[in-house]
Amino acid sequence: MHKEIYEEPKVITDTLNEVYNNYYKYNPLIRDSKNIYVVGSGTSFHASMYFEMLFKNAKAIQASEFTKRGLDINENTLVVGISQSGESVDTVNAVTYAKKFGAKILAITNTRDSTLYKIADQRILTKAGEERAVAATKSYIAQLVSIATLYSLYNKNHELLEEIKNLSMKVYEILSMEGLFRKYGQFLTEKIVVLGSGILFSTSLEASLKLKETANLLSEAYPSREFLHGPMQILDPQTTVIILGNSEDEIQVINKIKHYDSRLIRICEGCEINIPLTNELLKPILYIIPVQLIAFYKALAKGLNPDKPEKLVKVVRE
Amino acid sequence: MHKEIYEEPKVITDTLNEVYNNYYKYNPLIRDSKNIYVVGSGTSFHASMYFEMLFKNAKAIQASEFTKRGLDINENTLVVGISQSGESVDTVNAVTYAKKFGAKILAITNTRDSTLYKIADQRILTKAGEERAVAATKSYIAQLVSIATLYSLYNKNHELLEEIKNLSMKVYEILSMEGLFRKYGQFLTEKIVVLGSGILFSTSLEASLKLKETANLLSEAYPSREFLHGPMQILDPQTTVIILGNSEDEIQVINKIKHYDSRLIRICEGCEINIPLTNELLKPILYIIPVQLIAFYKALAKGLNPDKPEKLVKVVRE
Repeated sequence: MHKEIYEEPKVITDTLNEVYNNYYKYNPLIRDSKNIYVVGSGTSFHASMYFEMLFKNAKAIQASEFTKRGLDINENTLVVGISQSGESVDTVNAVTYAKKFGAKILAITNTRDSTLYKIADQRILTKAGEERAVAATKSYIAQLVSIATLYSLYNKNHELLEEIKNLSMKVYEILSMEGLFRKYGQFLTEKIVVLGSGILFSTSLEASLKLKETANLLSEAYPSREFLHGPMQILDPQTTVIILGNSEDEIQVINKIKHYDSRLIRICEGCEINIPLTNELLKPILYIIPVQLIAFYKALAKGLNPDKPEKLVKVVRE
Repeated sequence: MHKEIYEEPKVITDTLNEVYNNYYKYNPLIRDSKNIYVVGSGTSFHASMYFEMLFKNAKAIQASEFTKRGLDINENTLVVGISQSGESVDTVNAVTYAKKFGAKILAITNTRDSTLYKIADQRILTKAGEERAVAATKSYIAQLVSIATLYSLYNKNHELLEEIKNLSMKVYEILSMEGLFRKYGQFLTEKIVVLGSGILFSTSLEASLKLKETANLLSEAYPSREFLHGPMQILDPQTTVIILGNSEDEIQVINKIKHYDSRLIRICEGCEINIPLTNELLKPILYIIPVQLIAFYKALAKGLNPDKPEKLVKVVRE
């Protein structure tokens, strides 16, 4: 896992180039679709939510729920299936179901010739290289970069495209704070809440999942202000609240929860865990990285193997 | 809270009649909208998700996130704002924002002449009566019944409408199992996972919230099979998994998690906590009730006041 996180700068560059060079294949699928559903499970579902945030006619649905929603699927529908392995059974089932109704399929996968790859009409091949740790890290970064690149090209947003090229350097800046992540990892409590709003909400879900998978922590994510509407009740001194971003919402929430003696870890531009400035739409690509490393160090501190969570397999095949 | 749960049969009948009698006011708003956004916070967000499940062109968004999504809002947009008090600041802000872009507003509120009530073009007044406990119970049932009734009338689904009339009797059947809920409440562990798929996913979120608010439990909800994609790692003998429904997904998940010595509480048609048969679309109205009472009894067993969680207020006004 640690090695894979350190490959993220290269994964960003390679995936950007891959999508750039093959964009002409993807453009017609998006252009000609009336509505888009994006399906994935676990980490890939969080990438699906990122897709929904960028493409306004897209809707992210957990792959296992897709067939149960009575959705209107026809030949004008594009279904984007996201799966690192290309073998995740719920995602394969969802796109197979959609295809029967005439939908076009775009795969985002890290595995050439996988089942998902073969079912799809077109495929974006993320360039994460082989990922061996069960918890996805670099493959998630690759998924997000592929989606951001697709969005930049589709909207002819050259400024955004240029900024994606800068991300590798910014990831190195984040990795240089490793000592800080080790410290936070070692002292993390067992109960975690992760908050983020807007584009960073899906990042908070992914952060929460990483802490669960890797370090067995009880961890939940909410849109920042949504936390005030009930869930706040669980706060106590054994809870750490990780807050992504520093918009007005996060400031308000910090003011409301500061009375409850819970610990606070802030990740933002200008916080102690300092994220380099970037385009708003690209923040999820940078903000997840500190939590990937904090989860890694927490697992080590607990004597767990961060690469092999005892109850999980890399690919849910049934 | 206990008294309010016991008022649910009457709330169902009163709310059904209210929506039936005023349906002519709501119909044009739905008929003339091209797309529908449904916003709410906490429990009202879970009612918003139920709305999304029934009306295929509707999308539920947490009220606090609504203004951050860059949504396409215009005079063909209907925004449904759901708030028991009609004063929840995030929901009021969301509909105020939408109105500026020409959207029509339909309020679903329990409070005549509240801020939300006044902003709206039309309003559905749920007939829950005054709700004093901080954790919403009967007002949630009223929200769901109002949405189900609206859906039945809009789709001229007389069979469904007839079945809504039968729900009060079925709620009495559930309440008659109170001894069982007391027993489960007393012995509940501190860590809870709630699973449900399809129409019951939003119910699992509401069940999880109720356990948090009322009994301070650490509780999370997932679509049933989504739990297999990572979160399963947190299972241990101190975790209770509450499973709503008995579709193929739930059976598969039970088979996968049975090796981990976690406790299991099943709520379904034919389970020990036995839900009376009803129309698939109405299941959320019945399935939440056992968990409302289990949360109540767990709070009592812990010496907590179920009506007044120490960190929460009934209405988030800022």
